[in-house]
Amino acid sequence: MASNYNEKSLELHKKLKGKLSIAPKDGGTIKNIDDLSLLYTPGVAEPCRQIAKDKKLVYDLTIKHNAVAIVSDGSRVLGLGNIGPEAALPVMEGKALIMQQFAGIDAFPICMNTKTAEEFVNAVKAIEPTFGAINLEDVETPKIFEIEKRLTEELNIPVFHDDQHGTAIVVLAGLINAMKLTKKGKDSKIGIIGAGAAGYGIVRLLYAYGMKNITVFDSLGAIYSGRSNLEEYKNAIAELTNPDKFTGKINEFKNADIIISASSPGALPVETIKSMNKPNIVFTLANPVSELSLEQARELKIDIFGTGRSDYPNQVNNSLCFPGFLRALLDLRVKRITDKMKIAAAEAIAASLPESKLSKEKIVPDAFEPSLAGNIKSRVAKAV
Amino acid sequence: MASNYNEKSLELHKKLKGKLSIAPKDGGTIKNIDDLSLLYTPGVAEPCRQIAKDKKLVYDLTIKHNAVAIVSDGSRVLGLGNIGPEAALPVMEGKALIMQQFAGIDAFPICMNTKTAEEFVNAVKAIEPTFGAINLEDVETPKIFEIEKRLTEELNIPVFHDDQHGTAIVVLAGLINAMKLTKKGKDSKIGIIGAGAAGYGIVRLLYAYGMKNITVFDSLGAIYSGRSNLEEYKNAIAELTNPDKFTGKINEFKNADIIISASSPGALPVETIKSMNKPNIVFTLANPVSELSLEQARELKIDIFGTGRSDYPNQVNNSLCFPGFLRALLDLRVKRITDKMKIAAAEAIAASLPESKLSKEKIVPDAFEPSLAGNIKSRVAKAV
Repeated sequence: MASNYNEKSLELHKKLKGKLSIAPKDGGTIKNIDDLSLLYTPGVAEPCRQIAKDKKLVYDLTIKHNAVAIVSDGSRVLGLGNIGPEAALPVMEGKALIMQQFAGIDAFPICMNTKTAEEFVNAVKAIEPTFGAINLEDVETPKIFEIEKRLTEELNIPVFHDDQHGTAIVVLAGLINAMKLTKKGKDSKIGIIGAGAAGYGIVRLLYAYGMKNITVFDSLGAIYSGRSNLEEYKNAIAELTNPDKFTGKINEFKNADIIISASSPGALPVETIKSMNKPNIVFTLANPVSELSLEQARELKIDIFGTGRSDYPNQVNNSLCFPGFLRALLDLRVKRITDKMKIAAAEAIAASLPESKLSKEKIVPDAFEPSLAGNIKSRVAKAV
Repeated sequence: MASNYNEKSLELHKKLKGKLSIAPKDGGTIKNIDDLSLLYTPGVAEPCRQIAKDKKLVYDLTIKHNAVAIVSDGSRVLGLGNIGPEAALPVMEGKALIMQQFAGIDAFPICMNTKTAEEFVNAVKAIEPTFGAINLEDVETPKIFEIEKRLTEELNIPVFHDDQHGTAIVVLAGLINAMKLTKKGKDSKIGIIGAGAAGYGIVRLLYAYGMKNITVFDSLGAIYSGRSNLEEYKNAIAELTNPDKFTGKINEFKNADIIISASSPGALPVETIKSMNKPNIVFTLANPVSELSLEQARELKIDIFGTGRSDYPNQVNNSLCFPGFLRALLDLRVKRITDKMKIAAAEAIAASLPESKLSKEKIVPDAFEPSLAGNIKSRVAKAV
């Protein structure tokens, strides 16, 4: 189905030549020389002087309080791989559009020509003063983990990594409602395919939520303590997961209640699904083409099937989370994101779908649900 | 007079809480799930793929062709000095507003937390992929000269330094018309006060235009070849200027036809003006408070008096230049700015004021002149 959109999307992008525009705010239009003297020189010197005296006033007198930088080096864009910063720009512009429309945030894409984590961190530290929050996006592992850790420690504004935090929050939201429908609990047996940023974020959040029976698979099979040559962050995964010390491949993983794949098409074997405990829950999150198609999921009689795609039911996609969560981070002046805030956001998303509308084909609200951003903000406020 | 604006401007900035907003372009609004699928995932993958195959397409499919970064470290803002990146933000937002309203450019302020030229250059190189041009702004000397030189050499997009290029272009535009009115020629005796970025830019452009009788003054007096401890760029000034080998102070500088001060209030002695050849031309460009007030200029019977202020006649201010010049750089896909382009822009600005309207109190068009940006672009196009 994705191919139907390709041509149309390309045509639309050619026509628009950029999806975003910088506009004056209401009351900020320069109509005459007096406006120019107030919004620019000489009048503008006064807000400058005030901020120079008390730096906190930058939040009251400039765009900072509502500005988010969507930062990527284009090293792992959607399921397309390392396509570079220029080719990543259409995605980042799209995210900025969504932030504005769903949460009134002024987000600007910053696609960066950096190679190492060090270069990336230094560039984001350099541009910090303009922004109220950083949204990290589509950077390859393991580089992204060092980047996120260092920026979280070294910046004075919150650092949201959408692939990690956003995906995890939306997956947990979907699971909360899917488990309600299937009467499964926190002791469900869970398999996670893909130990990239998304997989790592999901594991950590589900664990923090109280789900301890999780096994994570990368291309070499299950991740377990003592597996040779584990990268540092996969060691962290091994410590949190795999209580049965399972050492096999994903196709040998039986009787799961929940499978979440954040990998690529082909990563999820049919036999794994066929062996699952019914009713079963399967989320396949690869983008733009999910690991299973809707047709395959129906053929396999998966009870609750979610993907990241907007053209399928149950869109377990970051766009449910990041506008409202960033709105909350900005308005609450959060400096660091905690697990408690992420769980609050997941519960808010799950609760934004009224129980009367909850069904196997409708486990999460859609991105157009008008109460979504407000609900996230008010729940996160209680977790700050 | 500036103080009248201070309180009003502060009030307006408090009310607006940021002068800019990021808006979807016409046709880029997300109204339903289909729009989301085209502007974001899965459809957005196709423009990404196309750019990954042919990087030049980033100009056709994203905001890059129309996006300008207004970059500053806040180390020399207006006449306020080193007030830091946060306090510089109101100025940079104001410039972005002007670029949008006068030339349809999508400009975003990037106020940077960098100290050295090296850090500044690296950060701008990092963010290059998103932008079609860089506007450098309000960075202290001599750091700015190294930054401008390196970025011009190392980036693939044009680097416009407004304090240097913009000020010089507008000063030349003002002089072209002022010299027409006073029947002065390129052999006029010129004194320039202030050897910062503006002074340096003005000297270089007037020299390139053919004016060779220029003497430049810094706080120690005239700059001449062989003066002890001259910084590198002041040596460059000495090589181009001071044909009489004048070694005195500004108050000893007699019989000038033209005085241009890009310094601070107090820098221009009354005796220098009193000794000028009549009719005389004096531009005092300090901001927000110019070196001479309008009242002082009238008392001194200066024939043609210009400042950077929007509340005085003859506003010889960068805002006449930068929107149209950046429009030209973007649309013509200029990689490097040349003197020929700058002279073309100055001539275009001068010519945008019809001769019938030209008078001693009206030597440049105002920033609201609707033909201005188009005129600059078409003249610069012939100089590319």
